Amino acid sequence: MTYCVGMVLNDGMIMAADTRTNAGVDHIATFPKLFTFEVTGERVIVICASGNLATSQRVINLLRQQIDREETPSLYSCESLFQVAELVGGLLNSTIRGYRAENEGSSVDFASHLLVGGQIANRAPELYRVYPEGNFICTSKDTPFFQIGESKYGKPILDRIITMDTPLNQAMKCALISFDSTMQSNLSVGMPLDVLVYRLDSLTARIERLDKNDAYFAKLARAWGGGLRSLFEQLP
Amino acid sequence: MTYCVGMVLNDGMIMAADTRTNAGVDHIATFPKLFTFEVTGERVIVICASGNLATSQRVINLLRQQIDREETPSLYSCESLFQVAELVGGLLNSTIRGYRAENEGSSVDFASHLLVGGQIANRAPELYRVYPEGNFICTSKDTPFFQIGESKYGKPILDRIITMDTPLNQAMKCALISFDSTMQSNLSVGMPLDVLVYRLDSLTARIERLDKNDAYFAKLARAWGGGLRSLFEQLP
Repeated sequence: MTYCVGMVLNDGMIMAADTRTNAGVDHIATFPKLFTFEVTGERVIVICASGNLATSQRVINLLRQQIDREETPSLYSCESLFQVAELVGGLLNSTIRGYRAENEGSSVDFASHLLVGGQIANRAPELYRVYPEGNFICTSKDTPFFQIGESKYGKPILDRIITMDTPLNQAMKCALISFDSTMQSNLSVGMPLDVLVYRLDSLTARIERLDKNDAYFAKLARAWGGGLRSLFEQLP
Repeated sequence: MTYCVGMVLNDGMIMAADTRTNAGVDHIATFPKLFTFEVTGERVIVICASGNLATSQRVINLLRQQIDREETPSLYSCESLFQVAELVGGLLNSTIRGYRAENEGSSVDFASHLLVGGQIANRAPELYRVYPEGNFICTSKDTPFFQIGESKYGKPILDRIITMDTPLNQAMKCALISFDSTMQSNLSVGMPLDVLVYRLDSLTARIERLDKNDAYFAKLARAWGGGLRSLFEQLP
């Protein structure tokens, strides 16, 4: 499995993904699932993927190919994040339909789910959750975050903490705790993590990789685990 | 959906279940999913059910009928919890197979999952997770709890807290927090809760119902939610 979180808040955007892939427990590998497309100062587009890795890698490669060939449409020609979501959703759905048509009767699940976020100059940042069917939904003030993949273990802390007003550093901390909870309970989600903290209007993005020796993550996980246990003991 | 937790610890046993059932969001109702069978001083058997309600109710009714008719085997004739699990698993599987055979081509899922726990005099308490296939697994010192139904939201806190040595009152508190986390994130699990705290060798059991106005549960949920937020703010 996979776990990815995206948020669009007043101060900017958070995207984070683990890097573990598995096809059965003896086929575990590390692959990036968070991808950025950037024209510095003009646009930043970030995509996280869960589900079938061949499907999501094909979509990412097709998007890169469109850019390299200077085709229209491409991620760099779209005028809005809505157009970006339409472009990505179309490629996702046609990829899945193609693999299904070529493999009738196969029980392989070719579906992937994507988070597509970013900002284009002079527009607000937006985040879409793109379904295998090619359609998509956008975050709102009431629901500023989306999760894909193994999302349930890490949802309670996001539900309790994240609002539009959450500052970026707090939101990132909350995302990391959400990953820690997920990794404690589910082996198919694992370090390293790729995380991206995008400050509003910066129009540049850098993925940071937190590996299993990352000092801050280890400290945070320890403080959270220990704090939870003492909070639990203090309860009435 | 449903959420049920069962634990067998050094001090006894905890079983808890919500009472919300739904067949679509406009078909929500309250049904018990926690059932006790008791010969005071001789045996206590507790069953929690998730999944298809018609299936689990049929199994419970068949078990009651066997007892009323003084048949053998019945829950009261079994010499061990292992025999109980075999009896229950057989009825569960034959019920599901029967409904499936009568409804070929139907997309209705007739499966239910059960937790079957209890104690028979002069034996240790045991807890089994019974699958729709009729087979089952037992808790161990390493894994003293099982969950069925909407289990992921509430698993992290159990993973962090519950061991064989956890005292019963602490284990119940942890189960309630696990329910609170689940209910915060998932509408299909809801109050009231049925909970049972079974003290080792007491050989009697009483279900307590916590409704949405329960003062202790409300206080606990408030203290946990507030405590989590302040713990979160104090993190590095």
